[in-house]
Amino acid sequence: MNIEYLLKSKNVAIIGATEKAGFGRDTCKNVMTYMDSQNYFFVNPSRKEVLGVKCYKSISDIPKPVDLMVICTPKHTVEKLIIEGSKNGVKGVVVYASGYGEVGTEEGQQEEESLSRLCMERNIALMGPNCAGFANFIDKVHPFAFLSDYRDRKGSVGVVSQSGQLILSMMDNPKMRFSYAISSGNSKISTVEDYLEYLVNDQDTRVIAAYLEGVSNPLKFVRVLKNAAKRRKPIVVLKPGRSQKGVELVASHTGSLSGSDRVYDALFEKFGVIRVNDLEELMTTAQALATIKKLPEQKKGLACISLSGGETGICADLGEQVGLHYPNFEKKTLEELKRVLPSYAAPNNPLDSTATLSYDTEKFASVLEAVMKDPNIGIVSVGYTLLQEISDNAIHYMTEALKLVCAEDWSKPVVMIPFAENTRHEGYVEALRSIGVPVLSTSAYGFRAIRNIQRFSEYTPEDKNLEIPLFNKTENQIIESESINALTESESKKIIQAYGINCGRFEVAHSRDEAVRIFREMRVKKAVAKIDSPDILHKTDIGCVKLSLETEEEIRVAYDEIIENAKKNSPTSRIMGVQICEMVPKGTELIVGVSNDPQFGPSIMFGIGGVFVEVFQDTVLGMAPLSREEVNQMLSQLKGIKLLEGYRGQKKLDMEAFIDVIVKVSQLACDHDSRIKELDINPIFLYEKGVCAVDALYIKK
Amino acid sequence: MNIEYLLKSKNVAIIGATEKAGFGRDTCKNVMTYMDSQNYFFVNPSRKEVLGVKCYKSISDIPKPVDLMVICTPKHTVEKLIIEGSKNGVKGVVVYASGYGEVGTEEGQQEEESLSRLCMERNIALMGPNCAGFANFIDKVHPFAFLSDYRDRKGSVGVVSQSGQLILSMMDNPKMRFSYAISSGNSKISTVEDYLEYLVNDQDTRVIAAYLEGVSNPLKFVRVLKNAAKRRKPIVVLKPGRSQKGVELVASHTGSLSGSDRVYDALFEKFGVIRVNDLEELMTTAQALATIKKLPEQKKGLACISLSGGETGICADLGEQVGLHYPNFEKKTLEELKRVLPSYAAPNNPLDSTATLSYDTEKFASVLEAVMKDPNIGIVSVGYTLLQEISDNAIHYMTEALKLVCAEDWSKPVVMIPFAENTRHEGYVEALRSIGVPVLSTSAYGFRAIRNIQRFSEYTPEDKNLEIPLFNKTENQIIESESINALTESESKKIIQAYGINCGRFEVAHSRDEAVRIFREMRVKKAVAKIDSPDILHKTDIGCVKLSLETEEEIRVAYDEIIENAKKNSPTSRIMGVQICEMVPKGTELIVGVSNDPQFGPSIMFGIGGVFVEVFQDTVLGMAPLSREEVNQMLSQLKGIKLLEGYRGQKKLDMEAFIDVIVKVSQLACDHDSRIKELDINPIFLYEKGVCAVDALYIKK
Repeated sequence: MNIEYLLKSKNVAIIGATEKAGFGRDTCKNVMTYMDSQNYFFVNPSRKEVLGVKCYKSISDIPKPVDLMVICTPKHTVEKLIIEGSKNGVKGVVVYASGYGEVGTEEGQQEEESLSRLCMERNIALMGPNCAGFANFIDKVHPFAFLSDYRDRKGSVGVVSQSGQLILSMMDNPKMRFSYAISSGNSKISTVEDYLEYLVNDQDTRVIAAYLEGVSNPLKFVRVLKNAAKRRKPIVVLKPGRSQKGVELVASHTGSLSGSDRVYDALFEKFGVIRVNDLEELMTTAQALATIKKLPEQKKGLACISLSGGETGICADLGEQVGLHYPNFEKKTLEELKRVLPSYAAPNNPLDSTATLSYDTEKFASVLEAVMKDPNIGIVSVGYTLLQEISDNAIHYMTEALKLVCAEDWSKPVVMIPFAENTRHEGYVEALRSIGVPVLSTSAYGFRAIRNIQRFSEYTPEDKNLEIPLFNKTENQIIESESINALTESESKKIIQAYGINCGRFEVAHSRDEAVRIFREMRVKKAVAKIDSPDILHKTDIGCVKLSLETEEEIRVAYDEIIENAKKNSPTSRIMGVQICEMVPKGTELIVGVSNDPQFGPSIMFGIGGVFVEVFQDTVLGMAPLSREEVNQMLSQLKGIKLLEGYRGQKKLDMEAFIDVIVKVSQLACDHDSRIKELDINPIFLYEKGVCAVDALYIKK
Repeated sequence: MNIEYLLKSKNVAIIGATEKAGFGRDTCKNVMTYMDSQNYFFVNPSRKEVLGVKCYKSISDIPKPVDLMVICTPKHTVEKLIIEGSKNGVKGVVVYASGYGEVGTEEGQQEEESLSRLCMERNIALMGPNCAGFANFIDKVHPFAFLSDYRDRKGSVGVVSQSGQLILSMMDNPKMRFSYAISSGNSKISTVEDYLEYLVNDQDTRVIAAYLEGVSNPLKFVRVLKNAAKRRKPIVVLKPGRSQKGVELVASHTGSLSGSDRVYDALFEKFGVIRVNDLEELMTTAQALATIKKLPEQKKGLACISLSGGETGICADLGEQVGLHYPNFEKKTLEELKRVLPSYAAPNNPLDSTATLSYDTEKFASVLEAVMKDPNIGIVSVGYTLLQEISDNAIHYMTEALKLVCAEDWSKPVVMIPFAENTRHEGYVEALRSIGVPVLSTSAYGFRAIRNIQRFSEYTPEDKNLEIPLFNKTENQIIESESINALTESESKKIIQAYGINCGRFEVAHSRDEAVRIFREMRVKKAVAKIDSPDILHKTDIGCVKLSLETEEEIRVAYDEIIENAKKNSPTSRIMGVQICEMVPKGTELIVGVSNDPQFGPSIMFGIGGVFVEVFQDTVLGMAPLSREEVNQMLSQLKGIKLLEGYRGQKKLDMEAFIDVIVKVSQLACDHDSRIKELDINPIFLYEKGVCAVDALYIKK
């Protein structure tokens, strides 16, 4: 099964061509408008012609070999048509009909299975069912189920969407320029992952925009992301599910099993995928990335030029809100700006260049040049509300200035940000696009798009450890037991100890006398005794932890009390003994956790313990394995990080040791991928020198 | 001076009428398009007619009495023209010319002063200088300096803007419908506050939208806000300055002195002003408030209806992101929805009503009705991307359904949210507007607008103490000394003690023996000794605090050491004695602070002490005085509030006592308004029962 049979098909048959309103008519109109007439054939047994085009009785009657069948007729006709098509050499089929798996009934599921089987057996690439078709703007193949205004949409954004409505909105949007637009529907044979893989490898696609509800083949999905990361091809993803309501809805909409949403964030962070919040941000970010001629240089800031003081102040606030940085201009830049600007204008960044300059090509070009040549600047935004009807000719002079500057080798990426919604004047949008200047969406969206571009340009795959355990799996095997399958604390600590993580000294006693012997041989000033049981998770609450034990007698008493409390308060729990541990000095409490996503594998969470985790939810999550550099970047996202770096005159804590622990735990998580469900190390004490994990809980799958 | 002479003028003379491109020509075109021909007169000594309209040589030649002069000619002509106009009975003048105070030169400042004086003397209402004029859509007065497309813009949003560019963008925007649009310019005689006051009192204005850079008359400003709050007339404000760059730019743009930005937030919170982030949010919020027929009921949630599963999931996330709540539907609603929806659709909130229903007026109306009648729902949003060219007739059926439902008494506010930017089809926008359904801006903006509407509907002036001290000032007097003018800790505590706030027992000793006597008479188990000095702020750091003193001998030693350390480590500080204080038990540390804004008066800040303030910046700020209800609302915004409410099995702390302290401090701040600069109570211990302030610092103006 080859996806090119769908997307790159040469001769297309529209089955169910009709003049009656609906998918059939609209598909006919689309192919008539966008395809060469020798490449499409209409099929309808009861019509001689449709919309003036000859109709064949069946696919067998078409005089040329057909690659692709687009089935516009109802569900009950589909299988018979595929069999007939297959006999006539068809290799790809698009099925619009709905009523399959997406309705959630057993009947629908079975019909979807049957359709899948049929296509598999006959080696047919199937798009859908329940899809809206696709448009290949490169080769002019356009079997798409919805009509939009006539317009040239050819460009370099490749779109895959699990929602037909959203892809229609993108087709309707004048700013978009596509290589491919694919409505994947139920994605039963050709999956979203297949389409993404195709687009990542496709030369004509510069940027991929995807609307995803869930992933059915996680391994293929991450392989595609990794491939894109290595090629530095941007993938922009809109995926609902940040909110609880969103998760519930997606589940009921497509039945997609979506893992924890934070795991998607971690996965996207690792592979440099840009995640957006809504359709408009998806479009403006993808189209901007496809339009700019190069990415901004790393670690450089934004310069903003507007024509009024009011807009400039708003730009300052909006930029800061999304985390963009406006560097101050260098002395040379300031001097040059002073030379060009009216005397009353101040050369700040963001810059109010005054309306006067927007009517003077040469001066506006000088301002652009000065700002671009500033070594602190990586990208320039021009604030201007381009309208649909032009009654003010400032845009003419500004466009001319941009043309002059953007033709130069030293030029840097430029975008235009409008301050109010509107359809924009197509001529100027096109003129600007052709010189690499995207007109972004209205300010809130525009600044987010710049932030997205900048974050993508900062993404460095070399800093990341991309070898996640999923790549080593031969099949996508998920085994999960229902019951809690915990190890005891001592067993859990032995596992992490084996990775070189200090857990202090500890040993399990199985009798009172053994407890005393262990204590004696340990030669520590103070010891702690704790129950060792796979079933008792909250040891302290039921009197199964005794601290600050200094004498053999205290150890004896503690042993007995712990055993007694365990039996009394948790009678069904298995007791493996009593742990005698060195009582280590109290350090700053951190927590490190592992959880193993059923789809994407292990992720590592960490933060500062206590209220910081519980009240402020100040934690970060990354996909295992993590490189030191990744851990470093994650640490900088913790608000409480200041507390570890010498807060209020306290000594700086041993951050390198903490990073080391996280890297090691992430390695452990990968090695144990097939058997670990969760690991909690809580707390782990961080000191001025070193760390010590004082409690751990390993839960098996 | 009466502002109606500007805004409600009947006969308008355009001085400098011309056909040459610029303000003069554009103003002529505007008055010709939007005013009745008997109400405007062109003046130009060198032209017989302009654009086919007769020109007078001077204002004296105009045969009718002229109320308003619009001066389109350069700065040097302005004063002479005003004198001439004044002789001819002119009461209002609009001055476009720039080069006055806004350029920041001494010359510009002087010319602005001179212009002001002239108008004051002659009792002339002046708009500008450096403004773009105004448009009164109610009475058809339209001396506005910029051209836009011809369109009917009459409505009920009153706009004031300190930026001409931004008001032009609003005029250009097809969704806006104005009562007045005022470009206030440098606001030298008629101020922004005057225009706001006018609009708050104006019957034709339902909603006020303002772009503000700063406030020159704080007293009038808050009077206007209070008046609007009492009338429940919404004011929506865009004010740059949330970011440091924004503050700097505003200062350099208009020279407006803008106070702390957080003080504006607190002021707006008290008076129910809606603050927005950018122009598009300003427009969509103001126009939505002007369009909906009533506000949503308090404490009810949002229901969202979209036509596709994809859009529904996005709505779930976007709503939650801005803090909107989707209540679950009641049983009755669910039953009704199940009856109407296709069998495969699930009746959730947000709701995917499926595309099918958007082609069925009756069914769509049934869904709307069911959702609106749900008792948990206060406002309904319909997700649909209305385009400019309609190629899909769903909007027809949906509009018909909305017409049916919105005509009913039981109907609730409805808005439409598009998912992609576009100019919208004017016919449908107008049809929806006429039944009270605003088409909001694209999703991110749309959900913010709903949140803004909901917050405004939740605003209850009765819950707030609106009597801020500024109202008691006879003049806007600001006295601030340069030097730090601190009281000692004991003096500071006496002031707060006088307001009934427990500070424990304390007394100042002036000798070693007095210290012992105080300790003896205090009869406490443990005491603390601290230096009492207005100059030593960090007492502990230089050995001037001694804790846990239990005997008279310890008191003696402590006294001597404190005096010695103070003299040694801070030789120039004044020493007023040594405080002997009861050592109170440690409680949860809180901080409460007062600062007195030079423009708007005292505000109260509070939070949980230590890392919560310093690392997480988890504090809230409100304008004094604060009612208990206001403090309650503010407390709920503290993330760390959980720590006070019985965190991890700890006892609940005495929140009522804490609220009491804040209300009292806010009263203190008001009473001391004329002399307090700052007050810091840090820490104040909160217990299971009661509070105790253990350190305080009062700084005088």
